[in-house]
Amino acid sequence: MAQPKYLSGDKAAIDEFLSRFDVFLFDCDGVLWSGDYLFEKVPETIEMLRSKGKQLVFVTNNSTKSRQDYKKKFDKLGIPAKVEEVFGSSYSAAVYIARILKLPAPKNKVFVLGETGIEQELDSEGVSYIGGTDPAFRRDIEPEDFTNIANGSALDPDVGIVLSGLDFHVNYLKMATAFQYLQRGALFLATNTDSTLPMAQSFFPGAGSAGAGLVKAIGREPLSLGKPSQAMMDAVEGKFQFDRSRTCMIGDRLNTDIQFGIDGKLGGTLAVLTGVSKKEEFLAEGAPTVPTAYVNALGDLMG
Amino acid sequence: MAQPKYLSGDKAAIDEFLSRFDVFLFDCDGVLWSGDYLFEKVPETIEMLRSKGKQLVFVTNNSTKSRQDYKKKFDKLGIPAKVEEVFGSSYSAAVYIARILKLPAPKNKVFVLGETGIEQELDSEGVSYIGGTDPAFRRDIEPEDFTNIANGSALDPDVGIVLSGLDFHVNYLKMATAFQYLQRGALFLATNTDSTLPMAQSFFPGAGSAGAGLVKAIGREPLSLGKPSQAMMDAVEGKFQFDRSRTCMIGDRLNTDIQFGIDGKLGGTLAVLTGVSKKEEFLAEGAPTVPTAYVNALGDLMG
Repeated sequence: MAQPKYLSGDKAAIDEFLSRFDVFLFDCDGVLWSGDYLFEKVPETIEMLRSKGKQLVFVTNNSTKSRQDYKKKFDKLGIPAKVEEVFGSSYSAAVYIARILKLPAPKNKVFVLGETGIEQELDSEGVSYIGGTDPAFRRDIEPEDFTNIANGSALDPDVGIVLSGLDFHVNYLKMATAFQYLQRGALFLATNTDSTLPMAQSFFPGAGSAGAGLVKAIGREPLSLGKPSQAMMDAVEGKFQFDRSRTCMIGDRLNTDIQFGIDGKLGGTLAVLTGVSKKEEFLAEGAPTVPTAYVNALGDLMG
Repeated sequence: MAQPKYLSGDKAAIDEFLSRFDVFLFDCDGVLWSGDYLFEKVPETIEMLRSKGKQLVFVTNNSTKSRQDYKKKFDKLGIPAKVEEVFGSSYSAAVYIARILKLPAPKNKVFVLGETGIEQELDSEGVSYIGGTDPAFRRDIEPEDFTNIANGSALDPDVGIVLSGLDFHVNYLKMATAFQYLQRGALFLATNTDSTLPMAQSFFPGAGSAGAGLVKAIGREPLSLGKPSQAMMDAVEGKFQFDRSRTCMIGDRLNTDIQFGIDGKLGGTLAVLTGVSKKEEFLAEGAPTVPTAYVNALGDLMG
């Protein structure tokens, strides 16, 4: 595999690289910001790409936030962006359920394991759901729940899908209920399956860990609608209708962002070194995931 | 491998099989009962075995109950049993920590993910612990918890072990706290790693599923002190001093109970079909785990 091209400080190489693409897909955390810290020259770089007529899409695996929530974060950090340019894994799941899966009514309701971001995106696509942030499920399991879940009297017969995302309110009652739906044949989807969530300069359990109990219980993996799953790429393409050969994925994680672009047969991938992966990982002999090019930080594209 | 012998309805075959053993190790859930439902003729079968002079040991992976709790369950269902005949995975874990692991103080405290059964058995072996049923951990995670867990101010510096069992009160706060202890080098133990719990004639998430989030987050499996881990067999043998060649394991799960007996080089194994595994699984060509014999239900041993 070809060595990735190092672009920082090389204006001619940057111009040539940018000229090869009409569309840029951006990962957010680790590329534009880290938590609430905005990286240098990010708003200027975004403006520069827009001024060249590039189409921008912000592709994120964080399922706890809706596109509206994300827009607020962009506004707060001073990055110019439109709601329609944001494509989160919750929205990806909603689009997949509503436009691709299209289960026939009435057995097309979703049982949600996750936070309000998922609910907002399901609402935006007109998908019915239960669970999620409903207080009725935010309680301890009681002895009678075992009977009522097992015999089905506590279940909604219209649930045909279990959707698992990052849930800060994970509990046994929800896990047992979701498991019973799966045993009865519900489809198993996940917004994303990241094992960890970088927060407070450490690592916390991610969506994949919050949903791992269900995976272990049922003995199979969900279809993930987040990076690097190509179900997400299909959903992005379904909405934005871009030419993959003229599209570039920009991200900090090799095994999610860069692999996502490679698997999607995009024209190129660009790694930034402000996040999780280090350049040693893709410069090493036999590295499994190698980007087309890399910069130290996104702002280096300003030349 | 030899085909397992089908004993139900064959009095001569049953008598011959029973005569080969002095000791019977029993799984409980799925063999004696399912939840609160006692299978037919179980007390009579237990009495019959005792009348023949057999030694009985009830070996259970259920970590939510202590041996005392188990004794109460036997009493309630009318099964004659003594506390000393019960050997649960919580007791197994406590014995392992106190008598085999013996971490030097002060960094030998246990962070417990589980119910009171684990706490009682740790108490019985004089092991210090935090977490478990402590109400301080039975709450939602708050924004400041992320900071305090990440920087260690919410942690007990003496914790050297994370012990994961079946926890009906699993939540994100406990998962994040345990994950942080593991990231800081704590040993990772589990009472058992069963994926499911048979209850109310259905299946619910087991200890392995309750702890799966932690496994996914840290990226490695715990040392299990329950079936089929031979750490448990060694502990049982250490207490009861039996002749393995004259011992039979009776259980409903091929991959835990029956494998436990096979790996332990017992004289025989007996599968019952009132629980998880179906006969098609061990009668199939090339089945990985095949019992010596099987009956439809334990009560069939009455002939």
